[in-house]
Amino acid sequence: MAGTDKTNKINFAPSPAIILCEPQLGENIGTAARAMANFGLHDLRIVNPREGWPSEKAASAAAKADHVINKVQVFDTVEEAIADLNLVLATTARKRDMFKPVIGPDEAAVRLVNTIKGGAKAGLLFGRERWGLNNKEVALSEAIVTLPVEPAFASLNIAQAVLVLAYEWRRENAKNDPLPFDENVGEPATKGEIIGMFNHLENALDGAGFFTVDEKRPSMVTNIRNMLNRAGFNAQEVRTFRGVIAALERKHERGKK
Amino acid sequence: MAGTDKTNKINFAPSPAIILCEPQLGENIGTAARAMANFGLHDLRIVNPREGWPSEKAASAAAKADHVINKVQVFDTVEEAIADLNLVLATTARKRDMFKPVIGPDEAAVRLVNTIKGGAKAGLLFGRERWGLNNKEVALSEAIVTLPVEPAFASLNIAQAVLVLAYEWRRENAKNDPLPFDENVGEPATKGEIIGMFNHLENALDGAGFFTVDEKRPSMVTNIRNMLNRAGFNAQEVRTFRGVIAALERKHERGKK
Repeated sequence: MAGTDKTNKINFAPSPAIILCEPQLGENIGTAARAMANFGLHDLRIVNPREGWPSEKAASAAAKADHVINKVQVFDTVEEAIADLNLVLATTARKRDMFKPVIGPDEAAVRLVNTIKGGAKAGLLFGRERWGLNNKEVALSEAIVTLPVEPAFASLNIAQAVLVLAYEWRRENAKNDPLPFDENVGEPATKGEIIGMFNHLENALDGAGFFTVDEKRPSMVTNIRNMLNRAGFNAQEVRTFRGVIAALERKHERGKK
Repeated sequence: MAGTDKTNKINFAPSPAIILCEPQLGENIGTAARAMANFGLHDLRIVNPREGWPSEKAASAAAKADHVINKVQVFDTVEEAIADLNLVLATTARKRDMFKPVIGPDEAAVRLVNTIKGGAKAGLLFGRERWGLNNKEVALSEAIVTLPVEPAFASLNIAQAVLVLAYEWRRENAKNDPLPFDENVGEPATKGEIIGMFNHLENALDGAGFFTVDEKRPSMVTNIRNMLNRAGFNAQEVRTFRGVIAALERKHERGKK
């Protein structure tokens, strides 16, 4: 979905850190950075990337999320990467046999938003492409986050998991904000305009001999009014529809000649 | 996040159709199919794919989402692709100057779930990689769906948009279902066990001369009890913690000799 507004400045408001633990492929780091940028995250931390850092593959896959890539911090251990954070949630797709709460992305988003709105720092920890996080790493977190995937097809790549969690964070964080754009719903029609349109249509239908059985006219009129009311015409649309009626009426009258 | 349970059968329960309008790259079709499979969608329809169909690139990028790829239907026009559906939502990232409602993924999910639970069929329409949908295509839909992206970095690829909307559909559709796995939270501790642990700790601290000012003992005890209560120990963890106290006590007593 193309739609970047280049007149907007990147927003560096507080947001969760994303910590990628020993990512194997630079491309995955890049696509994760892009997913972060889409939803307003910018603090990317990498623990011991296998292909080293900086990474051309990451920069290329980030598709211009340079403000994320250029600020990446690299650490030797997860402990160092999360040292300044107050809340860490570990993402994992499998059971650990630990005494630990397991939450979905929506509950995770609430905890992240509340932590950050309270002035503290929060992060989401993601594991290796092949086998995720080990139990020692998971134990550094307050809770496990897992996605409500289809059990028979549960394998998400890292960037996709980052995308869903970044989306959920933004949805929760900006839940009372407007969407990026809205359409004009037009000047609302008054009931007078709507009723005028109904009368116009019904007169036209009378003229066209639509109501063949007099006793059925009231219920047919009610049905037609209900159908059209559901469309919620605005004032402009009422005028358009009256134009439609008038055009059909004229055609009908031409037909009669 | 690795975690596919191969003992589970693919679930073909009713779910929204995904309609990709004139996708340019087979790889994007494949990654969209994979995103669908992650969240239990399986009805993929393609309008006029530029690289033709079937596509090896799509099959490869789908990462084993064969049950989606093998069922793909190809159409010449959007009209044909959506002919059997009852509700169609069009995804777009930019304003159209149409009289049309614009909703977020969460509201879209509610409408999709309600339509499908009512026995009708619903779909999500996605546009071309470069420039999305044209206005004639958008006009076939009941509403526009847009993602709450960062305005300065709004460009999502198709598979990512599919992923977020598929996730939202599943979240809404399965909102009272359990997550794919849960951890054992252990046998809950009784208050008697918790209080026994508190007494054990406080006796040990008395023995160690921790409470140097008698008048402060009650408030310090209260603080420590509140701290530990927040951890919500289960019965096993109470025993573990009493072991910790006992070990430290012994060390302290050894130290005194």
